[in-house]
Amino acid sequence: MDTNQPRWQRRKDARPAEIIEAALTLFVDKGFAATRLDDVATQAGVTKGTVYLYFANKEELFKAVVRETILPNIESGEHLLADHQGTWAELLWILLERWADRMEYSASTGISKLMIAEASNFPDLARFYVEEVVMRSRKLFATVIQRGIDAGEFRPVDPVMATRAVISPLMLIKVWKQSFSLCDTEPVDLKAFARFHYELMMQGLASR
Amino acid sequence: MDTNQPRWQRRKDARPAEIIEAALTLFVDKGFAATRLDDVATQAGVTKGTVYLYFANKEELFKAVVRETILPNIESGEHLLADHQGTWAELLWILLERWADRMEYSASTGISKLMIAEASNFPDLARFYVEEVVMRSRKLFATVIQRGIDAGEFRPVDPVMATRAVISPLMLIKVWKQSFSLCDTEPVDLKAFARFHYELMMQGLASR
Repeated sequence: MDTNQPRWQRRKDARPAEIIEAALTLFVDKGFAATRLDDVATQAGVTKGTVYLYFANKEELFKAVVRETILPNIESGEHLLADHQGTWAELLWILLERWADRMEYSASTGISKLMIAEASNFPDLARFYVEEVVMRSRKLFATVIQRGIDAGEFRPVDPVMATRAVISPLMLIKVWKQSFSLCDTEPVDLKAFARFHYELMMQGLASR
Repeated sequence: MDTNQPRWQRRKDARPAEIIEAALTLFVDKGFAATRLDDVATQAGVTKGTVYLYFANKEELFKAVVRETILPNIESGEHLLADHQGTWAELLWILLERWADRMEYSASTGISKLMIAEASNFPDLARFYVEEVVMRSRKLFATVIQRGIDAGEFRPVDPVMATRAVISPLMLIKVWKQSFSLCDTEPVDLKAFARFHYELMMQGLASR
């Protein structure tokens, strides 16, 4: 940060990030329908007018939250794919492990459960989420699996189905953590489970 | 049905079932919080007083819906386990296939998504659901896997983790169908996917 900038200007630059952070917290806690832009403004310490300066409406703010908190993770996975040198099984594990790590601490984990809960009431947001998050994540994993098949490392399975099989358990745990974690008496060690599932999958996928 | 019974008496016997069916439809369509007992009564063609004759409140009606629509499936799985003669892998497939079949037509499929959406707002219902549906289903699958291990058919894996790995993809698809099916451009053939996932799992679980 350029500390020669006047303080008001630095504050102004920081505002969209602060609004997005406040919105993420409120969306995850209260749901999309129940979150008011007034509450977002209060939580971010700005006026409602300031929120509208950056975001046309609640839908656009939600899209910005998704773009700022989830898409960078997918992009980072895409970069890993582009630069990868080792086996495809190794890359699959790196992607799953990073995902499990993020789930431990990131508030953006709550977005999946939020979308599942509210998708049927907000079809425009559901479409945005499916296109920009779901399809793009699936494509990342399906590409890794397809390359593994092309390299003779994996059996020639349907990469779309294999992608679903590989990513579903972590995705479900992510949703579960937001819903039932308080009353589930069999909590799961996320990283250990991710490894367990990965190893089962690898035995199913490995060419012999 | 004994058709010698007067019509009003047959009607009266049928009422709880009709109220439960109406409640299931409304809970799945509108959510738990948004469903009013008045609407349930209207949809079932009875008065609100009649609903209260059978169910103390909305929570009890919800529990009755779960007991009438989901628990019989778990019980039927438990009977299959008690009577099973073949391999444990075969039984695992029978359980998964029946589950996938039910998902194609049963409105009770919507209950999982409903619980995920509303669990944090209704902890008492969440606890009920986790104890009576989730834990009991997990126990059924974990027992089958443990017997397969004891019989030397499966590797000595952690049966709790293996259960999660086996049931998560179908569970997630079930939730997904209720949320994003309208905008997901890669719809899945449920039965084909269940078989695909089962076969991957079996290669991971099989003892060699």
